[in-house]
Amino acid sequence: MMRVGILGGGQLAQLLALSAKPLGLQTLCLDLALDACARNQTEVIHAPLDDTHALTQLAERSDILTVETENIPLATLDFLSPLKPIYPSRLAIATAQDRLLEKQLCQELHIPTPRFCNVSHFDELKHALTIVGTPAIVKTRRFGYDGKGQVVIKHAHDATQAWAALNNDSLIVEQMVPFDYEVSMLAVQDRHGHQQFYPLVRNYHEAGILRYSIAPWNAPRLFEQAKTIVKKLLTHFSYVGVLAVEFFVVGQEVIVNEMAPRVHNSGHWSIEGTTASQFENHLRAITGQPLGSTAATTYNVMFNHIGEHPNLSKILHLPNIYYHDYGKKPRPGRKIGHVTFSVSDRTMLHPTLEKLQGFYPEYTVRPADVV
Amino acid sequence: MMRVGILGGGQLAQLLALSAKPLGLQTLCLDLALDACARNQTEVIHAPLDDTHALTQLAERSDILTVETENIPLATLDFLSPLKPIYPSRLAIATAQDRLLEKQLCQELHIPTPRFCNVSHFDELKHALTIVGTPAIVKTRRFGYDGKGQVVIKHAHDATQAWAALNNDSLIVEQMVPFDYEVSMLAVQDRHGHQQFYPLVRNYHEAGILRYSIAPWNAPRLFEQAKTIVKKLLTHFSYVGVLAVEFFVVGQEVIVNEMAPRVHNSGHWSIEGTTASQFENHLRAITGQPLGSTAATTYNVMFNHIGEHPNLSKILHLPNIYYHDYGKKPRPGRKIGHVTFSVSDRTMLHPTLEKLQGFYPEYTVRPADVV
Repeated sequence: MMRVGILGGGQLAQLLALSAKPLGLQTLCLDLALDACARNQTEVIHAPLDDTHALTQLAERSDILTVETENIPLATLDFLSPLKPIYPSRLAIATAQDRLLEKQLCQELHIPTPRFCNVSHFDELKHALTIVGTPAIVKTRRFGYDGKGQVVIKHAHDATQAWAALNNDSLIVEQMVPFDYEVSMLAVQDRHGHQQFYPLVRNYHEAGILRYSIAPWNAPRLFEQAKTIVKKLLTHFSYVGVLAVEFFVVGQEVIVNEMAPRVHNSGHWSIEGTTASQFENHLRAITGQPLGSTAATTYNVMFNHIGEHPNLSKILHLPNIYYHDYGKKPRPGRKIGHVTFSVSDRTMLHPTLEKLQGFYPEYTVRPADVV
Repeated sequence: MMRVGILGGGQLAQLLALSAKPLGLQTLCLDLALDACARNQTEVIHAPLDDTHALTQLAERSDILTVETENIPLATLDFLSPLKPIYPSRLAIATAQDRLLEKQLCQELHIPTPRFCNVSHFDELKHALTIVGTPAIVKTRRFGYDGKGQVVIKHAHDATQAWAALNNDSLIVEQMVPFDYEVSMLAVQDRHGHQQFYPLVRNYHEAGILRYSIAPWNAPRLFEQAKTIVKKLLTHFSYVGVLAVEFFVVGQEVIVNEMAPRVHNSGHWSIEGTTASQFENHLRAITGQPLGSTAATTYNVMFNHIGEHPNLSKILHLPNIYYHDYGKKPRPGRKIGHVTFSVSDRTMLHPTLEKLQGFYPEYTVRPADVV
């Protein structure tokens, strides 16, 4: 039985492990955290991602390796790559873990992004603001997630404060795009270069964290633009596995916000809403199997459970519900589960969202978007 | 986090454990076999089902208990019941593990079954054949499955041979019903007596083993008859959890063949074909949660993998496929996995079955049944 070694042991690793079983695959994770939630599903080696003893153990016990996060030290990838195949490629991971490299690559491939500037000291920050304009966002180039490591600069004179807040010599300043809304696209490429694209997903963030998603989001023109962009990236990276790209929508155009070289929160709906979920297709791709269909079989609404769960008995009364508890200890701001509502008819999305307003009072739920 | 203790650790326990995770439930199995396949999914205590030390451990570590097989010693149920709640009820398990009690109950509840006779010595067998007629089937009352412990008697003068083959003083002789085909119904009752019924499933057996199923099987009159029968049984047993009942179809009538007080092979299609699968609804019921919808959301064909797997890379090329590998060592006659094809349109069942003939050459696949 083939075993897939996963760098990281959070909920994405857990959901990969859950999808691995029916395909006859074993899994094994590496994660420092003793409460890494993948432990609910599979064996976890508890060690830092740069512990060469643990990495050797992971590689020896696995047939192939993959990641559930882009924040893997490159030295770790270099240590592992002579031992076992790692997917996706080092290039994809290295690029996606650095906002500057990511944006520079987009520029090179003629993929639209917000204007940006590299910043490593305060004077550069002031200069950068004259180039990208205000409002702008200053971000650490690496290790940011869910809105962490980001500061908004409304006016040029806020620069001093922003610099003090981040206190980092490896920053990027980005134009704050006045976008209409956000979408993402997940896609998968197998070892032979075959590509499949999931439908566009509309995402609703608050305070930098994804609250809920609707998929498929019916916007054929935007879908085609996004597909062209994602295709370029898959090909450039000689990618194997699932790639996620987040976009801003401005009028009738998409602009790349960021990419993730892995399965992605905005693709969770695919567990119920497609024949081959993002987890299954990632596993099929990296294990050398043919890809499954990424076409939506239903209309889906996915809500994240952040910090606390809704009342289980009450929410299970709702029709068309698929409940996902990650078995994590609730903590403010922590993603501890999600729920997907899969309906057969697009007109059922509106009443579903209306009903869900009561279950997620702290979210700004907008049923009118799907009327 | 609530833990469900399961008596038995085969693929039904494994699939229960796989469904438990997203609901935030832990599982723990008890099974003597060191290679019990649920070990791929959850912790298994390896001990006989009558080992009181192991039973105590299972009960202490679990919040509620359930079974993946009806063949549980009644002494085990009696030992466990003061320790933790067990679902379904002792009465249901005791009845379903004894073909005679099962048939007697049907008689009592005015549920049609084949004619039958209790037989405990050879003279009774000869007498029984004059009552039920020939052809008849002699079966051991207990511990039979997948056609094991059964002998067909074509003519009265075969009785001696049949008696010698089974060599058991606890037999039942049943009329061999000239049925047109076989169907089954799965249903679920929660702790408050709410009932839900899955659609009828058409089953194709060969040599006593289920080969493939089609669901939903569209036969409204048969569905209503089956529902009335299953309703009686759920109510009689004060049942909690999923109950499966297999029927013979003769003309426009159903006749009960047998029942199983547990999730059932003919309900595997519900993983993909309904909102709440048989596994999820069994868990919802026994943990005191509301039931989910049992309505079919797609048309489904389920094929068992018996003894060997089809070529994975080839079969994964087929559209609409959901692959399930139990991680068991292949052995002739052993159920080691299954595959479900879920399609949105009934007319797609026929081409799906036609394509599958090539993958299951040893099965008698009958696409014409769904034209």
